[in-house]
Amino acid sequence: MNDDDLKVAPGSHVQLDAIDPRHTAHLGNEEAARAGLAENAEAINDLQDRLYAEGTRSLLIILQGMDTSGKDGTIRGVFNIVGPLGVTVSAFREPTPEELAHDFLWRAHIACPRRGTIGIFNRSYYEDVLIGRVRQLAPASAILHRYDDINAFEKMLTHNGTTILKFMLHISKEEQKERLQERLDTPDKNWKFRISDLDDRKRWQEFMEAYEIMLSNCSTDWAPWYVIPADRKWARNAAIARIVRATLEKMAPEYPKFDEHLASVKID
Amino acid sequence: MNDDDLKVAPGSHVQLDAIDPRHTAHLGNEEAARAGLAENAEAINDLQDRLYAEGTRSLLIILQGMDTSGKDGTIRGVFNIVGPLGVTVSAFREPTPEELAHDFLWRAHIACPRRGTIGIFNRSYYEDVLIGRVRQLAPASAILHRYDDINAFEKMLTHNGTTILKFMLHISKEEQKERLQERLDTPDKNWKFRISDLDDRKRWQEFMEAYEIMLSNCSTDWAPWYVIPADRKWARNAAIARIVRATLEKMAPEYPKFDEHLASVKID
Repeated sequence: MNDDDLKVAPGSHVQLDAIDPRHTAHLGNEEAARAGLAENAEAINDLQDRLYAEGTRSLLIILQGMDTSGKDGTIRGVFNIVGPLGVTVSAFREPTPEELAHDFLWRAHIACPRRGTIGIFNRSYYEDVLIGRVRQLAPASAILHRYDDINAFEKMLTHNGTTILKFMLHISKEEQKERLQERLDTPDKNWKFRISDLDDRKRWQEFMEAYEIMLSNCSTDWAPWYVIPADRKWARNAAIARIVRATLEKMAPEYPKFDEHLASVKID
Repeated sequence: MNDDDLKVAPGSHVQLDAIDPRHTAHLGNEEAARAGLAENAEAINDLQDRLYAEGTRSLLIILQGMDTSGKDGTIRGVFNIVGPLGVTVSAFREPTPEELAHDFLWRAHIACPRRGTIGIFNRSYYEDVLIGRVRQLAPASAILHRYDDINAFEKMLTHNGTTILKFMLHISKEEQKERLQERLDTPDKNWKFRISDLDDRKRWQEFMEAYEIMLSNCSTDWAPWYVIPADRKWARNAAIARIVRATLEKMAPEYPKFDEHLASVKID
């Protein structure tokens, strides 16, 4: 198994039951995976510097997953070495009245990364086909349109210099229970617990179906979805770092060439 | 000498000539300063987590300085441990026509940090009294108003939960020469060199005067300016990390208290 096996083949039908959230075989042993993570994070940092210097393209990384699946932890674990200068995180919370007064892609479009940078969406417009579907926040026919609209939007972004990676952090219901319990039991994590998290948990199976439809409809050649086994944090971070690095290496950003006019510059 | 000696006393008249950009005596020896930086960066990370959990206040850090004074380097050196999840960097470049169509504080106001986060302004509205003054981008009378307007704006922010720190990275003209030359001579840094940097350099003395007026007019009890000796990168980072940590410790953010209602929660 390699990273490509985590990718959802465009047009395929995803069954999340068939993907083990504790799977780690693609990564070798834990020690090697942790060493690889550190090395890949450094490589991502170097590649980001080139991306910034080149200044013509951007990388958009979308993180989706159930509560406690590790979206924040992924950002810390993989992108802290790059730092806030090269990475912008946009968290999409419950939409404001202003945001709701626009189409569902509007607020995300505003937050898309500028050329030369890496942008991370902590949740995204995919919420509008996840919780939007499960809680029927829009008519079923309106939600049906969104899959095509998202695919077209993402295609437009890639036409304009943005490479897109989408990671679904796949945790088990049992693992979520442990993580929620830990939030309840740890004084300094207590504030992260919201009673409404349990409402989503009660509809776990409905959410899994919404994820499956999303993954099946919106993994495209230009913006693939990856399902990341995420019950083990080290495995989650290691897998994502490897895919991000490989993607940046394929983009192969280059420092701009020496401007010959500068050869004669004298600084007084 | 301690950190308070780097602070511009409100109402005082600043003379930059009298402040040595190579000064390091406040930091002890280099080795101790580097160890202190690492420790302070970790402490800032912990305090940021509390700030986020508390969710009611924010910290705005403004960085100003001549080209090559180390604004980017400060962000990397002090804030990479905190990472992009807790820190948002806003770089203020030459204003767009849309931005110019508004008042000079408009684009900065939009970028102010949300509660619970640290926002860094890499340049800021202070450009409008620096390059704005030197290049006469607005009538002299309009620029005169800006100092008071800035002080009132910053006071409003502090009334609404934002603590403000402002650092002027003070480098010598000689040090800038070396750093510009290094950009010219190093292939991978070459792209950072802009020929227009030399135009500002030619007006070094005028810029220093504009900085002095800014520092003298806009260091207030609620939003102090610090002049940071910045010819030595390790000293610059060490001093700033120490001040940021002390400021956050004074803010003393706390994790929210345990919600007693949660004691009876059962996760199924």
